[in-house]
Amino acid sequence: MNGFVSFVSSGPGDPELLTVRAVNRLREAEVVLYDDLSSGPILDLAPTTADLISVGKRAGRASPRQDHVSRLLIDHAATGLKVVRLKSGDSGMFGRLEEEITALRAAGIGYEIVPGITAPSAACAAAGIPLTRRLNARRVQFVTGHDVTGALPEGLNWTALADPQAVTAVFMARATFPALAERLMAHGLAPGTPTLMAQGVSTPAQSFRRDTLAGLAAHLTDAAPDPAPTLILYGALAE
Amino acid sequence: MNGFVSFVSSGPGDPELLTVRAVNRLREAEVVLYDDLSSGPILDLAPTTADLISVGKRAGRASPRQDHVSRLLIDHAATGLKVVRLKSGDSGMFGRLEEEITALRAAGIGYEIVPGITAPSAACAAAGIPLTRRLNARRVQFVTGHDVTGALPEGLNWTALADPQAVTAVFMARATFPALAERLMAHGLAPGTPTLMAQGVSTPAQSFRRDTLAGLAAHLTDAAPDPAPTLILYGALAE
Repeated sequence: MNGFVSFVSSGPGDPELLTVRAVNRLREAEVVLYDDLSSGPILDLAPTTADLISVGKRAGRASPRQDHVSRLLIDHAATGLKVVRLKSGDSGMFGRLEEEITALRAAGIGYEIVPGITAPSAACAAAGIPLTRRLNARRVQFVTGHDVTGALPEGLNWTALADPQAVTAVFMARATFPALAERLMAHGLAPGTPTLMAQGVSTPAQSFRRDTLAGLAAHLTDAAPDPAPTLILYGALAE
Repeated sequence: MNGFVSFVSSGPGDPELLTVRAVNRLREAEVVLYDDLSSGPILDLAPTTADLISVGKRAGRASPRQDHVSRLLIDHAATGLKVVRLKSGDSGMFGRLEEEITALRAAGIGYEIVPGITAPSAACAAAGIPLTRRLNARRVQFVTGHDVTGALPEGLNWTALADPQAVTAVFMARATFPALAERLMAHGLAPGTPTLMAQGVSTPAQSFRRDTLAGLAAHLTDAAPDPAPTLILYGALAE
């Protein structure tokens, strides 16, 4: 038995935004390894007999080591079980999918990737606007707001990011946005550039804030920390 | 009766990659306005009693005028029917969603947007690789390969596009890729940069070609025209 792992993208959180294939894989799962962000009603789709194993980060506790997650995937798949590795958002976007895939390949275990709705697509849809405008937006770009240490990533392409004709979506944006905005303005992006902050998209706690680049940076500088998943869009946004 | 329009994203083409919400909206539809790219098995989800209206471009025929599409949406919704406007891929990405939304708002007709799987997410998932690498890719960007005239769009940000640390996905890429690659190399992107061409993703005709930037450009310069939907990824791609 070589086993098989389905990497299933859970999308932004609402079970209705899962793909049909993701629902099917969850319903057939014998083991589900999940991150905390993607838990809740989506996990309820798995059979009551399935083993549900949390491998995500928890408040106040360190994340399990990545090699431990890969080891769990391999050990369960090697017994011939149908393993679902549930990942929030689109599993191939800014996650650690590659490390898990590399481990499965080395172990000779087959896998598939079930794609999911990205946070920017979900946020714009929930806000009732397109992600790109027909005539204005020439380019859409996604970046993460922090690296593994929690700081603004090094080596960002500021010419690309300070382009007013692009729509830019910043994942995990909240903590570092004031620093990001400062760098963007230093590279020529206007303080009045439109922004849209989206939190808890597709969940009961969903909220939006429209502001300017400088206005949102000032707001977040003064705001209390908030652990809700936060996406910030800026640039050539639709109204 | 003010009516209601659901903009439903059909994703890359496989009905299993629809969201649960998209399936629900199609099953309840009384009228479906669709583009040809999103037709086929997905339309079969609509009730047999639903009116199915093609508003897409056909080979050899001009596309219906955009204001005619908006007029059809308004006229059907205004009779109180449940109208689905089916759009290929993710409806808010590089489409004409904004023009249709503007028309509905002006007519006082409510709408919702149901997001979908983007072509880059679907292509990478089908190829078994993540869209972003954990350590290499700092930025993901999407651009279209042609403007409304079919030519390479004007005013592209070449510093952004020629960045070897980004993953770039070019939509509708095939016809203009040789010209795009030439400009990228003139702006310093190495001829050996990895590329992945994906055609007909998630359909029975799905195919992939891995190559280098210069190699793929040469291949497409010599290749016969091919109307299959083509996405080309280049940059910091996973293997």
